[in-house]
Amino acid sequence: MERTAQAGSEELVLSFLAEAGDAFVSGEAMSGKLGLSRAAVWKHVESLRERGYRIDAVAARGYRLVAIPDRLSPLEVGPLLNTHDVGRPLHYFEEVGSTSDVAKQLAEEGAEHGEVVVAEAQTAGRGRRGRSWFSAAGRNLAFSVILRPDLPPQRASELTLVASVALCQAVRDAGVEAGIKWPNDLVYQDRKLAGILTEMEAEADRVHWVVLGVGVNVNVREAELPEDLRPIATSLAEARGEPVPRALFLAAALTRLEEWLDRHAEEGFGPIRAAWRDFSDTLGREVSVRLGDRELVGTAEDIDDAGALLVRTGGGLERVLSGDVQLLRPR
Amino acid sequence: MERTAQAGSEELVLSFLAEAGDAFVSGEAMSGKLGLSRAAVWKHVESLRERGYRIDAVAARGYRLVAIPDRLSPLEVGPLLNTHDVGRPLHYFEEVGSTSDVAKQLAEEGAEHGEVVVAEAQTAGRGRRGRSWFSAAGRNLAFSVILRPDLPPQRASELTLVASVALCQAVRDAGVEAGIKWPNDLVYQDRKLAGILTEMEAEADRVHWVVLGVGVNVNVREAELPEDLRPIATSLAEARGEPVPRALFLAAALTRLEEWLDRHAEEGFGPIRAAWRDFSDTLGREVSVRLGDRELVGTAEDIDDAGALLVRTGGGLERVLSGDVQLLRPR
Repeated sequence: MERTAQAGSEELVLSFLAEAGDAFVSGEAMSGKLGLSRAAVWKHVESLRERGYRIDAVAARGYRLVAIPDRLSPLEVGPLLNTHDVGRPLHYFEEVGSTSDVAKQLAEEGAEHGEVVVAEAQTAGRGRRGRSWFSAAGRNLAFSVILRPDLPPQRASELTLVASVALCQAVRDAGVEAGIKWPNDLVYQDRKLAGILTEMEAEADRVHWVVLGVGVNVNVREAELPEDLRPIATSLAEARGEPVPRALFLAAALTRLEEWLDRHAEEGFGPIRAAWRDFSDTLGREVSVRLGDRELVGTAEDIDDAGALLVRTGGGLERVLSGDVQLLRPR
Repeated sequence: MERTAQAGSEELVLSFLAEAGDAFVSGEAMSGKLGLSRAAVWKHVESLRERGYRIDAVAARGYRLVAIPDRLSPLEVGPLLNTHDVGRPLHYFEEVGSTSDVAKQLAEEGAEHGEVVVAEAQTAGRGRRGRSWFSAAGRNLAFSVILRPDLPPQRASELTLVASVALCQAVRDAGVEAGIKWPNDLVYQDRKLAGILTEMEAEADRVHWVVLGVGVNVNVREAELPEDLRPIATSLAEARGEPVPRALFLAAALTRLEEWLDRHAEEGFGPIRAAWRDFSDTLGREVSVRLGDRELVGTAEDIDDAGALLVRTGGGLERVLSGDVQLLRPR
């Protein structure tokens, strides 16, 4: 089942309430700004309540949005989105194999820059290098963003770093002091919060499309994780001590993503590299990198202007374009 | 309709004759080497003649392959192929939209390194940057090769240069002194003989597949070309003054491709870059390059170790990763 966003006046009311955050909004103000009668505003508030939104109504103060349904459909996410391209439209599914597989298919069929696929559940979530990705239906977040950047494929890897910077910022906005583990995992106290899988189709000098696949452990409890993941993974809710509204987090992540994509398009890789360094949880630490059958051990010193990790070893500075990094000493 | 290669004893006879080139092969030698009776050899020769092969039979000298049918199916191409991976199997179609579209589909479905799609006719041949590619059914050559290289996507563009070097060598073997126009067109006296479209799917640090799409003007006459292409395109047959057997040329091109792919895998980009320079028709010439809305004019000085074109302008050395190059003065 797929639903895409449509902005009726009910969504306008919701959007107005969402923008006000914790503050009350008077029925009169909404009525004036949205060109609706006070009775119509009331009717929409009632209808939103029936859809699962908790909205306080206090005489002489007005309305306040207290909680939104824990769903990721355009009805919930659309009014919270503050973007021009990203998430427009938002293709919503109850269940898919992998959001990136759906997004790749849409991209092949001509989907435009910014279209997003989101699903409540993935039955075959994929990670980097053909690994599987743990999904917890209704508790975690899996979405994929279609991009059509004006970049040669040699520079497409920059988008992975754009995405990790944007996602790290969204996680920090949500109150969790996450860091980036090279190249693009988000970690909290060395345990994985989120991963990004960047896939693209390109010809020699032109990218056709990029699909950024994002998986975030949002509200899953550590006890719900598979046993092998428990020592190495965590979730926003575990780190913060309380659940995170998924629709709000999705909207925030897409908004941050668009900001950083715009910045990358206008100013190039420089500011991305600087932000990545700020957010990095890898630089300055002892790492081991598996390169085929060779193992590289040294200090992660920097990333270069192609996003490669520079590792200082006994033999000099080595440049790592791809590979798995292990942090040798816990924080 | 798709046919893939199967090596029956008829193909062994054909292969034996093909390897001997212009020389006669005695029925006795074939019978001994292939473990067939002399009567069986004769029966296979008769059957090959019925399929369109011209085979001379001269008493006391034996058999000689004089001409092969002008088709590209595994029956014709298979016995001529001297490769371990490339062209195995060869997926043959009478007509497709684009061989690269079929190859991409096969790659998505798990096709292996070296599988090739070839068609007698393309109804929607594609060139670089979404341009169309002229196809002359039964006269020209269109094929696509699926590769699964062990490369990060930043280095995938090297394969375009591998392909242009291999194809240039196959064209020169066929007696036409072609050169390479940056990045990967083959030209003869500044007119286009062949083009290569490299497409790939990759994740941030791993290529999933590359499809090399190759279009060669083999036997098309200049008068058969669309009017706008006549001043800028030519064919092997026009350049050489006589037709080229397409199956032989395809087998030779795939063999050269495999040689250069192996070399690239073993020795890296160095020898490819050196061969590209030797074959180049661009280096040392005055060029103009359109870069978005900017026009760069200067001397094509070299390619760097990422395959980018280095252009010496009044303002210094500029590096061109993508773009269309115009040669300012004809040879």
